[in-house]
Amino acid sequence: MTISAGSTLRTLRERKPLVHQITNYVVMNETANATLALGALPVMAHAREEVEEMVGLAGALVLNIGTLSPHWVVAMLAAGRAANARGTPVVLDPVGAGATSYRTETAKQILDEVDVTVLRGNAGEVATLVGVEAEVRGVESVGAGGEPAGLAREAAKTLGVVASVTGPVDHVSDGETVLAVANGHELLAAVSGTGCMSSALTGCFLAAKADDPLAAAAEALAAFGVAGEDAAEGANGPGSFHVNLYDALAGLDPDTLDGRARIS
Amino acid sequence: MTISAGSTLRTLRERKPLVHQITNYVVMNETANATLALGALPVMAHAREEVEEMVGLAGALVLNIGTLSPHWVVAMLAAGRAANARGTPVVLDPVGAGATSYRTETAKQILDEVDVTVLRGNAGEVATLVGVEAEVRGVESVGAGGEPAGLAREAAKTLGVVASVTGPVDHVSDGETVLAVANGHELLAAVSGTGCMSSALTGCFLAAKADDPLAAAAEALAAFGVAGEDAAEGANGPGSFHVNLYDALAGLDPDTLDGRARIS
Amino acid sequence: MTISAGSTLRTLRERKPLVHQITNYVVMNETANATLALGALPVMAHAREEVEEMVGLAGALVLNIGTLSPHWVVAMLAAGRAANARGTPVVLDPVGAGATSYRTETAKQILDEVDVTVLRGNAGEVATLVGVEAEVRGVESVGAGGEPAGLAREAAKTLGVVASVTGPVDHVSDGETVLAVANGHELLAAVSGTGCMSSALTGCFLAAKADDPLAAAAEALAAFGVAGEDAAEGANGPGSFHVNLYDALAGLDPDTLDGRARIS
Repeated sequence: MTISAGSTLRTLRERKPLVHQITNYVVMNETANATLALGALPVMAHAREEVEEMVGLAGALVLNIGTLSPHWVVAMLAAGRAANARGTPVVLDPVGAGATSYRTETAKQILDEVDVTVLRGNAGEVATLVGVEAEVRGVESVGAGGEPAGLAREAAKTLGVVASVTGPVDHVSDGETVLAVANGHELLAAVSGTGCMSSALTGCFLAAKADDPLAAAAEALAAFGVAGEDAAEGANGPGSFHVNLYDALAGLDPDTLDGRARIS
Repeated sequence: MTISAGSTLRTLRERKPLVHQITNYVVMNETANATLALGALPVMAHAREEVEEMVGLAGALVLNIGTLSPHWVVAMLAAGRAANARGTPVVLDPVGAGATSYRTETAKQILDEVDVTVLRGNAGEVATLVGVEAEVRGVESVGAGGEPAGLAREAAKTLGVVASVTGPVDHVSDGETVLAVANGHELLAAVSGTGCMSSALTGCFLAAKADDPLAAAAEALAAFGVAGEDAAEGANGPGSFHVNLYDALAGLDPDTLDGRARIS
Repeated sequence: MTISAGSTLRTLRERKPLVHQITNYVVMNETANATLALGALPVMAHAREEVEEMVGLAGALVLNIGTLSPHWVVAMLAAGRAANARGTPVVLDPVGAGATSYRTETAKQILDEVDVTVLRGNAGEVATLVGVEAEVRGVESVGAGGEPAGLAREAAKTLGVVASVTGPVDHVSDGETVLAVANGHELLAAVSGTGCMSSALTGCFLAAKADDPLAAAAEALAAFGVAGEDAAEGANGPGSFHVNLYDALAGLDPDTLDGRARIS
């Protein structure tokens, strides 16, 4: 495994892959703009009538259950199966799993029926899906049992995915190796939808490095974290930080990114 | 009744209540970020399958009819009844009542079937629901008959709510007392969704002071108005004002807020 | 035909027309804020139960198929027919036509069943609807056969609309005259939803100049382009550019706009 967020970012900006996102109403604009700022092309499409055709054009599919309803679940499953049939990587963001049984059950159903490449969630959401005790308040993770590296490894093994568990330090695992990513800034937690953005960017990196989802997932978090660090400079609060974040994503320099990425 | 926006804000930031919002597509990101910037935790969930469970976790429920459709109304009614059963305060924002009969009738249906704690709207919307002549253009209130303090008192009495009527000066009434809130800035009217934000923040304050909805509603408007005043400094127009608004909400100082709140 | 973006903008700000938008989830907040910043009043309403009544209050209707689903199509058709019955101008933005057959067929159905005043799209989308070979990736136009002035003229003739084809230089045609609009900035392509914003602003200008849709459509693009030029000053990337764009729209000066508009 070679880890180089810089070279994957360079590839991504050359290829400009389409990243198909079936995501929640709250963050659609945010994840579209983050995807575009990074250098990929976002497309949002959720109608049962078109998801299979759309995913056929895409380099990655991102499923996010943040504002669920039944016909969206049907579309997510159809899109996920179509992605699997073509070998297109799939990211699942189980927003709010553990908060309501509808979210927990839907996330489990997607994991059952779709071959998910990367599961990107906070500790509470991932712990819920592994069956570990967790405290979740709405869509915020307040705490989860156990240490996060172990949780990521356990989730990867149990669920057959690359598990990408974000928090103050992120942990990404394929069930054996665990990569810790120590980039980021506390203001990321002050803006709604930054978790969803990290899932979208994971999709972008997977589209550029589909053959190594463990590395791609860690690189995506490192790149997003570095952008968060840059965005915090000169920010006066969550509003200006949020704006700076798009500037910082667009300004990420492939030549210096590896030197700044704190992946271990 | 003790009015202290500062002490309620301090309580809110300590408790970080979850505020469940079933709101319109236009402002979901905005109200989520305003809620988070203030110091509470937003959650958006609208599926019939989960609203009752989600509202059970929340300190307040905010219903906003800005982009209605039938299955959302069903969910709003279910969530409202579940909130009532638990004694959780409910805010209703009747966006566009008076513009179409569908909106007017839906707002009335919610008021009939749910015990609404605070009705937060502009003069045209509230006047429509009280049966007073009003001029509404789309979702903007252009003018409403009568003076606003009287309208707030009348709405509170007739509808059995705390009525929170926003405008250049806001008026909040429980049917007897009328509080006037004179904070704010004209740029608030230049950004889409600031009315919806004020409803979301009313929910946040109610979650921290459920036993006194009249005071909580007025405090919320004062806090939002003070943030608007701060946001206007250095703003070059509605875009930069909008960004500054989140910074200003996060920067609200409980120690100085009461001195700046103009509630009478 | 008199072309004066400045005088149409002045009229628009005096009348403050309501512009009814049935648009996609990704850009609703953005097009509402752009409409408001320019000086018109946005309203989003998509329920079959209210679209006909709402469009009756509006000076223009904007239909945008960016995140389609069947019940939204039904509402778009109903709103379009109601607009036609009242002589209210209709803008269609065929987002992603050519990417999936669902989008292509829906755009064609709207063009068949509704008398569309202005079709505003990128070259790939418009070429698809005219039956010309085009390369579309998701919702981004990558290239389209033929030169754009000819495409605009051909689309106008074939589809019976004013065709407004945006790109590095925009081309607007009624089937005979072709107007080229050379305002704008490359950062407009770095923000998601600027195409949708240009459609919303086309609706605003049409509401102020319904008797001359060719001029109104070109003026709208010139005004938006000038705002883009202003927004680029001092921008550090797509995030700050996006914020500046609302400030710039609000700051457009009717007295200097015609001197800056590059319409030929």
